[in-house]
Amino acid sequence: MAVRNTITIKVLAKKLGLSVGSVSKALNDSPEISIETREKVKKLAKQHHYTPNHFASNLRNNTSKTIAVVVPEISDSFFSLAINGIEKAAQERAYHIIISITNELLSKEKIIINELHNGMVDGILISISRETLEGSHLKEINEFGMPIVFFDRDLEAMDTAKVVTNDFESAYNAVKHLVDQACNKICFLSVSESLSISKKRIEGFKKGLIELSKYNMPNHIVKCSTETAENDLIITNLLQDSSNRPDGIVVSGEHLTISIYNVCKQLGIKIPEQLKVICFSNLAYATCLSPSLSTITQPAFEIGYKATHLLCDSLDGKLTELKERVICPSKLEIRASSTCIKH
Amino acid sequence: MAVRNTITIKVLAKKLGLSVGSVSKALNDSPEISIETREKVKKLAKQHHYTPNHFASNLRNNTSKTIAVVVPEISDSFFSLAINGIEKAAQERAYHIIISITNELLSKEKIIINELHNGMVDGILISISRETLEGSHLKEINEFGMPIVFFDRDLEAMDTAKVVTNDFESAYNAVKHLVDQACNKICFLSVSESLSISKKRIEGFKKGLIELSKYNMPNHIVKCSTETAENDLIITNLLQDSSNRPDGIVVSGEHLTISIYNVCKQLGIKIPEQLKVICFSNLAYATCLSPSLSTITQPAFEIGYKATHLLCDSLDGKLTELKERVICPSKLEIRASSTCIKH
Repeated sequence: MAVRNTITIKVLAKKLGLSVGSVSKALNDSPEISIETREKVKKLAKQHHYTPNHFASNLRNNTSKTIAVVVPEISDSFFSLAINGIEKAAQERAYHIIISITNELLSKEKIIINELHNGMVDGILISISRETLEGSHLKEINEFGMPIVFFDRDLEAMDTAKVVTNDFESAYNAVKHLVDQACNKICFLSVSESLSISKKRIEGFKKGLIELSKYNMPNHIVKCSTETAENDLIITNLLQDSSNRPDGIVVSGEHLTISIYNVCKQLGIKIPEQLKVICFSNLAYATCLSPSLSTITQPAFEIGYKATHLLCDSLDGKLTELKERVICPSKLEIRASSTCIKH
Repeated sequence: MAVRNTITIKVLAKKLGLSVGSVSKALNDSPEISIETREKVKKLAKQHHYTPNHFASNLRNNTSKTIAVVVPEISDSFFSLAINGIEKAAQERAYHIIISITNELLSKEKIIINELHNGMVDGILISISRETLEGSHLKEINEFGMPIVFFDRDLEAMDTAKVVTNDFESAYNAVKHLVDQACNKICFLSVSESLSISKKRIEGFKKGLIELSKYNMPNHIVKCSTETAENDLIITNLLQDSSNRPDGIVVSGEHLTISIYNVCKQLGIKIPEQLKVICFSNLAYATCLSPSLSTITQPAFEIGYKATHLLCDSLDGKLTELKERVICPSKLEIRASSTCIKH
């Protein structure tokens, strides 16, 4: 195994016959140190591949210029687009980002947050895991001084800043669209019953049904999973009995699209003639699917971008408190999968 | 702005009337320290939300149990799948990962590598940016003791460990498939001419044409971009002149699929009747596209998984040198977009 780099400011100081403080000041271009000495220190630091120790400079300066981005997954196009927005804003504000993935596990989220606790980063952007019902791990470090901004999946009980979308209205509008397309047996495929965004979507869906639809299917909220094989089974069970089959579905998770399209192909169910489908999704391929997929398109890039600027405003001292709640509205994009075919 | 957490091992030591060394040993469960004292130290550390300082313990123990994953982007499904494989292996080996994105920029890759240089991580898994023609930034830190494993996009000039796929053979086999489907004007859409994987694909493609095809199109290597709008234009130019249009294309980047499908729709070109398409891609939606997309499917998860175990083998002292080259073969998955329709 190779020898690790252990050059420290102490070693530099010793080699130069200077104090640690002077070396640090020289590296930080302090006017207290002569230009000649600064040059000499920097030259030796470069020769020895010394880069400032983030944590140590953090303790000295209270800043690492690094933001942690904590996400449940990156395969979903919402998160990859949101991270693009975060990257853009972070670059504009001269911050670095490091990304950690919780895999939808509370245990992993806790470990990650704990690791970030001690100065490696200046602030946290987080979209919580499906398992995160309460946020004591987040509250603790937040109360202890770590700024946190939620994006998309927030914790309602925490009053720190949040950038979210209008999930309630979007689900309501999706029902309205399906009712307009003559659907009267409408189901909702849910990926969680605890996440705030899921609860709001379910509430909006239910309100839509009550106000707009003449008929209510029994068991019209169908809980799905994160596993494709399990979802194939759940969706097959939902669709195989033609006498009791929904004629419209609002889908709450992008990853369910493949299961729906594949199960419909297997069962010989035609989209949109026999089943109209609209999905909460940022899938770039929505237009290329057969049939093209109607989506509730979330402003993923914008959500990530705004959340980052909000956090940087706080880190850069431009905000007295970090409590703002920003709502970026989603957009209904109607395509072939939910459009009435006239006979 | 909130006050930052600045609890350090020094503060703990002062509060307890112990030396810094004793506190450190107590936190690390050293048998030199009495059980009572260990409990007392841990209790106070917990009260003050003290977590071990990664960097400091890194200098002491030469380990942070953290691996940096440096990727050009995460929107491409190859990278999101590879990261899933990396996550799985890292968990098995009790390492954390942090992800950094270069956005295909050499300048950003250099900054990231420089930031990782000083002990925050134990090793680096990297897939280089399109702009990275030479790797002095990587060579330097590698020679200085930072273990590096390349996955997928490697630097040929560096003899550290690599986990890649068989790009040469895959491109050759794609040409063979198109020739078998009666294509005789075959083009290659390239995303880079400098990346090792691109060079190998182009070589395999050219060998396939020379050995298997009766006809060679002039300008049969078409350079594309990272921007969708630009690619739409390039592909329109390639396809709009029906007298000189290719009848088969091998596509080197997943993100080009949308442009090809959309341009063909606009120009009224039927896939696969008038143009057969096969793409290097891990797209989960390949089966749901219209027509379903033939792919050269890279073992993305496996590449990430194996690269991580290799790096951990080195970090955990199980390897004397980190030079292995692993090749995980890709798979041709033939679907409707490249299949001959019999008339």
